[in-house]
Amino acid sequence: MTELKNDRFLRALLRQPVDLTPVWMMRQAGRYLPEYRATRAKAGSFLDLCKNPELACEVTIQPLDRFPLDAAILFSDILTVPDAMGLGLYFAEGEGPRFENPVQDEAAVKKLFVPDAEGELGYVMDAVRTIRRELDGRVPLIGFSGSPWTLATYMVEGSSTKEYAKIKGMMYDRPDLMHHVLETTAKSVISYCNAQIEAGAQAMMIFDTWGGILTPRDYKEFSLRYMAQIVDGLKREHDGQKIPVILFTKGGGAWLEDMAATGCDGLGIDWTLNIGDARQRVGDKVALQGNMDPSILYASPERIRQEVATILESYGKGSGHVFNLGHGIHQFVDPERAKVFVEAVHELSAAYHQ
Amino acid sequence: MTELKNDRFLRALLRQPVDLTPVWMMRQAGRYLPEYRATRAKAGSFLDLCKNPELACEVTIQPLDRFPLDAAILFSDILTVPDAMGLGLYFAEGEGPRFENPVQDEAAVKKLFVPDAEGELGYVMDAVRTIRRELDGRVPLIGFSGSPWTLATYMVEGSSTKEYAKIKGMMYDRPDLMHHVLETTAKSVISYCNAQIEAGAQAMMIFDTWGGILTPRDYKEFSLRYMAQIVDGLKREHDGQKIPVILFTKGGGAWLEDMAATGCDGLGIDWTLNIGDARQRVGDKVALQGNMDPSILYASPERIRQEVATILESYGKGSGHVFNLGHGIHQFVDPERAKVFVEAVHELSAAYHQ
Repeated sequence: MTELKNDRFLRALLRQPVDLTPVWMMRQAGRYLPEYRATRAKAGSFLDLCKNPELACEVTIQPLDRFPLDAAILFSDILTVPDAMGLGLYFAEGEGPRFENPVQDEAAVKKLFVPDAEGELGYVMDAVRTIRRELDGRVPLIGFSGSPWTLATYMVEGSSTKEYAKIKGMMYDRPDLMHHVLETTAKSVISYCNAQIEAGAQAMMIFDTWGGILTPRDYKEFSLRYMAQIVDGLKREHDGQKIPVILFTKGGGAWLEDMAATGCDGLGIDWTLNIGDARQRVGDKVALQGNMDPSILYASPERIRQEVATILESYGKGSGHVFNLGHGIHQFVDPERAKVFVEAVHELSAAYHQ
Repeated sequence: MTELKNDRFLRALLRQPVDLTPVWMMRQAGRYLPEYRATRAKAGSFLDLCKNPELACEVTIQPLDRFPLDAAILFSDILTVPDAMGLGLYFAEGEGPRFENPVQDEAAVKKLFVPDAEGELGYVMDAVRTIRRELDGRVPLIGFSGSPWTLATYMVEGSSTKEYAKIKGMMYDRPDLMHHVLETTAKSVISYCNAQIEAGAQAMMIFDTWGGILTPRDYKEFSLRYMAQIVDGLKREHDGQKIPVILFTKGGGAWLEDMAATGCDGLGIDWTLNIGDARQRVGDKVALQGNMDPSILYASPERIRQEVATILESYGKGSGHVFNLGHGIHQFVDPERAKVFVEAVHELSAAYHQ
């Protein structure tokens, strides 16, 4: 494989010295970019875009051509795995993801299987290979998956929900079925992520979007336990390079120590924590990725720079910080503000790495 | 005023000995009850129901006739205050609350005023008086308001939102305007709550539904600071009785110590905390209200009882716990499951008060 020209992101995750704090943005390939909207219009639906490796590659690289980002992230959806399990993913206009065949009874649970990562999910691996070729070593490529718990919420509910009645009903009343769903999903995620790594993903991020809706006890039993299985099951080295793994539980700030104990390399944190406090809590066990409120990007350039400075100061000196937003960039943000943000991270972080 | 026949709720909030742990449910007067749906159909819209003291009284008392609850809560909406400021509250079918005149520029901010609690908001005080008369000392009546920050999110956004772009834009770019909105709103809330107390409310709860979307620094500056003003400004004694105040920031589990330092009497906590840990953190400074996941009510009666037992054990012996759900009861819960829950709290808690 081509030599990596910018390895700041990987080095920071492994807590090795860097010249500047690396930065990327969750959902950096997204609707706030006019060029993304143009490619998406060409592709048809959002799902058509995910399933077209050439166009998925195109949108993955678009933000890198605008901003000096230190990582690319595979353009895909977290629900590709359950879709490949035959649940029939589709997007109802303005209503988010839905499944034609949600998993709502014992028969449906028992039918679940581990999909073939180079079969039903081959289009994702094709996208990874295409992107790596096009990146040509410019920055590392991050692969990703939803966490088993997060995937299961959509699989059981069949759509987005505010109340999580169906999945919590299953969890509280039939924990045996719930664990069966999660075990099959965890095996699927491991196979899926390892295939991404073999196809060329250079780091892996697990998005646990809905772990934060659980009690501390249930979080450990139904979400973290399966993320720990994934951390254990992933290829952590490929092609002579370490493959760092980042776990991100939205709203999971209270559980950082437990998350770090899985043996992952980095933790994503949202803006409801002070990153300096988070660093004190996890010590030198893991790197931290985050944690600017994406809404800051609605403010003036001066205010954005000030917030970047505050977060850099809070983290303090030394490696182990990947700068990011605490959540995906919003669709109505002006790309020029995103540019101010990314450039400010590089400009203002040099002093912390001398 | 009539003597109170059941003062368990007030005693627990003041950390005085009780025979059983008191219990009530957020949104106990709500759509899960067929009798509520019938009264609401009679009233017309949700807002018509809030503005009709006789019918608001009817729905306030309905759950007490079904379950042995230890408190009633005024049936109203958190957005009555900004409505009385002339913002024009209405409910778009299936889309939540909206304002005809959101507060989105300096001119609109400067026009805000403190509404007359016995004038524009007189229908709320009429409801409080009617409910107190009908309750006839059965259980205490809780009055409430939204927190200034939470009210401001709706006032500035003009509707529910996922991204909070407008209010965070104002907060980050024009903190002077934001503080002006919050100051006027805090004064309005103080006047509104004190009028409720004079009309007969025997405890007060401040709902900070959206404080949890802030960074720790901004929570203190834009939400907690104004809740502290309210705690200071409320009549804490009326008619020879103490009036306890409860603060509830959804998702605010990280900030309990700061919330307790306001001098309030109780803190509401959601289910993402272990209540035993929360008790250790706040010591004997405040009572705790919560914290069962409302989704447990989808599970079997046995599972519900088991969860009640777990939470009682986690809190441990002694007073200072008001049992509640960590969030409002869901509309699709079977009222019989709510009954199992309420009865279990009384039955299983006796052992903790010997």
